[in-house]
Amino acid sequence: MKSEIIAVGSEMLTPHRQDTNSLYLTQQLNSIGVLVAFKTIVGDRRKDLVNAIRAALGRVDVVLIMGGLGPTEDDLTREAVAESMGLALRRDATQVAALHARAATWRIPIPQNNLKQADVLEGATLLSNPNGSAPGQFLDTVFEGYRKLVFLLPGPPHECCPLFDAECLTRLQELVPPRAIASRTLKAAMIAESQADKLIAPIYTTYPDVDVTILAHAGDIQVTLQCARPTLETAQQRVDELAGKLEEALEEWLYSSEGESLEQIVLYYLGLRQATLAVAESCTGGLIAERITAVPGSSRSFLGGAVVYSDALKQAFAGVSADLVAQYGAVSEEVARALANGIRLRTGATIGLGVTGIAGPTGATESKPVGLVHIAVSDAQKTDAINRTFRGDRQRIREWAAQQALDLVRRRLM
Amino acid sequence: MKSEIIAVGSEMLTPHRQDTNSLYLTQQLNSIGVLVAFKTIVGDRRKDLVNAIRAALGRVDVVLIMGGLGPTEDDLTREAVAESMGLALRRDATQVAALHARAATWRIPIPQNNLKQADVLEGATLLSNPNGSAPGQFLDTVFEGYRKLVFLLPGPPHECCPLFDAECLTRLQELVPPRAIASRTLKAAMIAESQADKLIAPIYTTYPDVDVTILAHAGDIQVTLQCARPTLETAQQRVDELAGKLEEALEEWLYSSEGESLEQIVLYYLGLRQATLAVAESCTGGLIAERITAVPGSSRSFLGGAVVYSDALKQAFAGVSADLVAQYGAVSEEVARALANGIRLRTGATIGLGVTGIAGPTGATESKPVGLVHIAVSDAQKTDAINRTFRGDRQRIREWAAQQALDLVRRRLM
Repeated sequence: MKSEIIAVGSEMLTPHRQDTNSLYLTQQLNSIGVLVAFKTIVGDRRKDLVNAIRAALGRVDVVLIMGGLGPTEDDLTREAVAESMGLALRRDATQVAALHARAATWRIPIPQNNLKQADVLEGATLLSNPNGSAPGQFLDTVFEGYRKLVFLLPGPPHECCPLFDAECLTRLQELVPPRAIASRTLKAAMIAESQADKLIAPIYTTYPDVDVTILAHAGDIQVTLQCARPTLETAQQRVDELAGKLEEALEEWLYSSEGESLEQIVLYYLGLRQATLAVAESCTGGLIAERITAVPGSSRSFLGGAVVYSDALKQAFAGVSADLVAQYGAVSEEVARALANGIRLRTGATIGLGVTGIAGPTGATESKPVGLVHIAVSDAQKTDAINRTFRGDRQRIREWAAQQALDLVRRRLM
Repeated sequence: MKSEIIAVGSEMLTPHRQDTNSLYLTQQLNSIGVLVAFKTIVGDRRKDLVNAIRAALGRVDVVLIMGGLGPTEDDLTREAVAESMGLALRRDATQVAALHARAATWRIPIPQNNLKQADVLEGATLLSNPNGSAPGQFLDTVFEGYRKLVFLLPGPPHECCPLFDAECLTRLQELVPPRAIASRTLKAAMIAESQADKLIAPIYTTYPDVDVTILAHAGDIQVTLQCARPTLETAQQRVDELAGKLEEALEEWLYSSEGESLEQIVLYYLGLRQATLAVAESCTGGLIAERITAVPGSSRSFLGGAVVYSDALKQAFAGVSADLVAQYGAVSEEVARALANGIRLRTGATIGLGVTGIAGPTGATESKPVGLVHIAVSDAQKTDAINRTFRGDRQRIREWAAQQALDLVRRRLM
């Protein structure tokens, strides 16, 4: 069963506001097996609203319209649904009385215009809204030959979400075939999106009943699997079966089978090996430390580190000699190795990580382009170093470098 | 002229992801007088995509479609536009060559499937995408008797937004009636949104022709002023007049008159005073260093710092004695002062910043709740310290603490 969520309000068509109710509604709808196929955001213009409602009625079974139920001139949802579906609106005497009673408790006279909140669509069931003045409405009707379920919900989150849970969820559950949705997220690091897809597409295309979505950001690939079945058990089985095959295909690029972040995985392995980590960051400027320390409990395995932007600090905090910097340059494999080794020795950590590079936009030389990054990982046995040239702006280069550095630590720990 | 933004991607129909590009695009479209009348979010299903594109073509003049231009099976935007508008797709030899060349620099063979990124709609102009492999496309065409402008844009923000600015904005500007919108952003730190509004609302309500939006996030208040006039000069005059009054009303909370970030302002004052900064972070874990080093050229005034998660590192990198930590606890005013002073002396910076706190969710004691943060700023003359108790989850507490710390440095420099 397919649904569409329509968010009504001109403020959500400005650069400053977004609809957020729909995220909650989506979660609740998915939990009973209703997919969200479309979301539409439309302003408080009657013509546009009618257009959006008609489009939704033409393509899905369940239409949820949020907002536009208030008392003001530009609250037009009731009128627009009536026009779209050819239904009459009648003013409900009980609702009018309720509005007067509510206004009395606030000790304000009720403006005439407010009474439009008591207008009810022909055939609709009213949905009680304890947190606001306008009730929701529900239509279970046949429109142009097809059965349609239409919900009118108030816009404010503290009215919309509780009303949906209390009044819509069970009504929907009784009307939709029982269906449960299982999902799972795999993650891989430092593999191109196209290369990852080449490895896994031949497998997931043989599971047409499992919905696979691939997202890529700065060296992080996220593969989400979703499957709807009459029971959660069978859905989960199907997802897990495919996940197992995709995990194998993603080889050592795969770092997470349950959606954990790369820094969570690094911390997990550090804990497992009873190892500790310290970092000396130049071009990433604290980004690696920030990612790791964002994880609650990271202090058990992460000792800390140094942001060694100046050459003097490379010396002071990681023991990198001025001679070495003078000989090879601050951005060099030798300095990355010395940073990793030096921060490990200074802090007593099991593993030291060193990163030095040119994040740009300035700082490039003839032999060292913007984006060049040297990364080294050191433990008591050995120090490994790699270099990469990342593309993009300063922020992107820093993100790629941090991701690559964390992945290098992960690989060392595996 | 009315537009619709269509965001393509099944992940944006889950409870976990939202389209964010459209906020930026809306801002840019508004700046040239194009209104956004609808936004639609649709998944990677061809039938749904065709339906969404047809609906848009039926109700607006400008259609912007973001996403679904990548190389994978579920990237279907080109095909869906072709089907919706009855246009042919042809593979462009120059684009095929460009894809091969791009793959060669990454030293990976190009999968056959990738070449679909070279498919071009009949009559379309290609829009160069320096940050990704798939170019955008632009159609200026007549559809069912009406002129329609259709833009196909890549989905990732770092591809979509620059491409829109470079390739779409001027094309649109030539086609829409001229209308100039002036804007200006003021920023204030560590003042409550309601308090800021109380100070400025009596002023901005007397300028009904200037649109004022207030956004708040973790101690950062952003006040955006916008005014539309036939000429930019008269619009700018009006905005600047109001901005001057609001700046005065925001007193010393105001830190930026032109939208600069707090870290940019701190770096600006450091440069002005020929001063340098170093930081010793415990609970913020690198977040302050990361914010500062994200600014290009920050290395001129920012020496670096230490992420001193463990007590041993507080000693090793900032000279905070174990005795002091034992006596007052790691989260104390005394330790914050010692961190600020110690990191300044160790690094030779003009100003030292020290932060220690409890970001949670664990670590609280009877006298020290989650959210308690001590911050100190030190220079050769004196060391000042403050403490605050922030609310929210780990991430929010860290963000508030970093903002408060940077604001303390700003106030010291003023």
